[in-house]
Amino acid sequence: MIEQFKKMIGKEAKNVSPSPYGRWLNGTLLAAEEGKIKMSYKVREEFANPAGIAHGGVLAGIIDEVIGMTTHTLGRDGFFVAVNLNVDFLRAAKTGDEITIETEVVRAGKTIAHVECQIFDKEGKLLAKASSNLLKTVIK
Amino acid sequence: MIEQFKKMIGKEAKNVSPSPYGRWLNGTLLAAEEGKIKMSYKVREEFANPAGIAHGGVLAGIIDEVIGMTTHTLGRDGFFVAVNLNVDFLRAAKTGDEITIETEVVRAGKTIAHVECQIFDKEGKLLAKASSNLLKTVIK
Amino acid sequence: MIEQFKKMIGKEAKNVSPSPYGRWLNGTLLAAEEGKIKMSYKVREEFANPAGIAHGGVLAGIIDEVIGMTTHTLGRDGFFVAVNLNVDFLRAAKTGDEITIETEVVRAGKTIAHVECQIFDKEGKLLAKASSNLLKTVIK
Amino acid sequence: MIEQFKKMIGKEAKNVSPSPYGRWLNGTLLAAEEGKIKMSYKVREEFANPAGIAHGGVLAGIIDEVIGMTTHTLGRDGFFVAVNLNVDFLRAAKTGDEITIETEVVRAGKTIAHVECQIFDKEGKLLAKASSNLLKTVIK
Repeated sequence: MIEQFKKMIGKEAKNVSPSPYGRWLNGTLLAAEEGKIKMSYKVREEFANPAGIAHGGVLAGIIDEVIGMTTHTLGRDGFFVAVNLNVDFLRAAKTGDEITIETEVVRAGKTIAHVECQIFDKEGKLLAKASSNLLKTVIK
Repeated sequence: MIEQFKKMIGKEAKNVSPSPYGRWLNGTLLAAEEGKIKMSYKVREEFANPAGIAHGGVLAGIIDEVIGMTTHTLGRDGFFVAVNLNVDFLRAAKTGDEITIETEVVRAGKTIAHVECQIFDKEGKLLAKASSNLLKTVIK
Repeated sequence: MIEQFKKMIGKEAKNVSPSPYGRWLNGTLLAAEEGKIKMSYKVREEFANPAGIAHGGVLAGIIDEVIGMTTHTLGRDGFFVAVNLNVDFLRAAKTGDEITIETEVVRAGKTIAHVECQIFDKEGKLLAKASSNLLKTVIK
Repeated sequence: MIEQFKKMIGKEAKNVSPSPYGRWLNGTLLAAEEGKIKMSYKVREEFANPAGIAHGGVLAGIIDEVIGMTTHTLGRDGFFVAVNLNVDFLRAAKTGDEITIETEVVRAGKTIAHVECQIFDKEGKLLAKASSNLLKTVIK
């Protein structure tokens, strides 16, 4: 599973992601290992709120997308569905900015995975942090 | 303030919203009063996750967009910035589905507003619920 | 199951609760039905923070206790363990105040139950609200 | 301010804490610096749920207490009031166990402080994690 991710490193999601929404967000995978993903995103015009800064809803969307990807690195039978998502917004990102997101599986239980993530700006300042509990669903 | 919202009822966001991301989501305002908004959204292809159902990240984005709009109905000096957003995902929506979102300001303090919302499918089943604390920022 | 709860109505937890911490909190059950509990608590001296108002940690504790009780009203095989708890604090309660808490199971899935609750003061003002996702654990 | 905390290191809260609820929890301060607190707690009988493990409500209470203390290390004029508290429960602690909690102020803004914390068991396993947004209130 992790091999598939490694092949996507450096490529834009619009060309390689199986997620239609992920293709619209169009991040670039920077690193992937079991339980960890690092991606970068460009804050496009369409990502803005009326004040011209990155919309909290887009940050939440990026977070949910990359957390979902991260559960796929666990390479288990079945897949994970988000039960909840908690996001804290700490600082703003402007249109045109490059932001990076780093995720980590904190606990991968038999039924529930707990994943957290952080979004940084170019100077490494923390823009947002989040955590999500996901339920493992086995396809029979 | 609320008069401006009332003029937008029945119109698609892509034609009337000051929010670039809101225009992309392209919801239709159904009702607006002080502290309450009701909107409908069509789950488009771009809103999907790899399983063909509405991406949790898009639901979170819709939630954040409409909660932000709701604080504008309060018609105060200044505007509200989200401090946090908590989303619980209860049921899935499929591509092509029409979903509605209803928000309510539970408490509008001097500094903090607390807003909650619910997303329903056509049969009125609860798909997701969320709450957000927002900080009032006064432009001087 | 619900019959056992109905027998406890009007009695103080210190005399009837199977939960040691619940006995310390010592609430009084006011009403119980499948998926819903209503209890009242007296804000004792020990519940205070340094400012003499109900400690947020005690409110969170009451919430977690009553949400747990509520899952027991579902009367299923097995029991529910909290995955997460989100609390929003809206207004303060003073030492000596009587507060009431009302819970409701919003969704009881096969694996996950989602429960929400509200704490009110005597005038019916909302002091705090919370939600929790709980995982069903079957004892084999 | 931090000097007052340093004097409390190694002492039980029941003898030194200005917080009535903190005295009941009776943790021992292990370390304190600006924006960071480390404490240990013994899981007493009264902290248990019906299954004999640490009640989620008590863990949430400990978290809220120590996060509150942590904002006091910032030594500012005024004090911080919790707006929200999100707790994720990852593993159980049994009655009699010694647990430690570590907090950190992630961002101390002019109006909002964001604090996160983790609870560990003796082997260093993560039992729970939490974050809280707090509003600075200035006494005039």
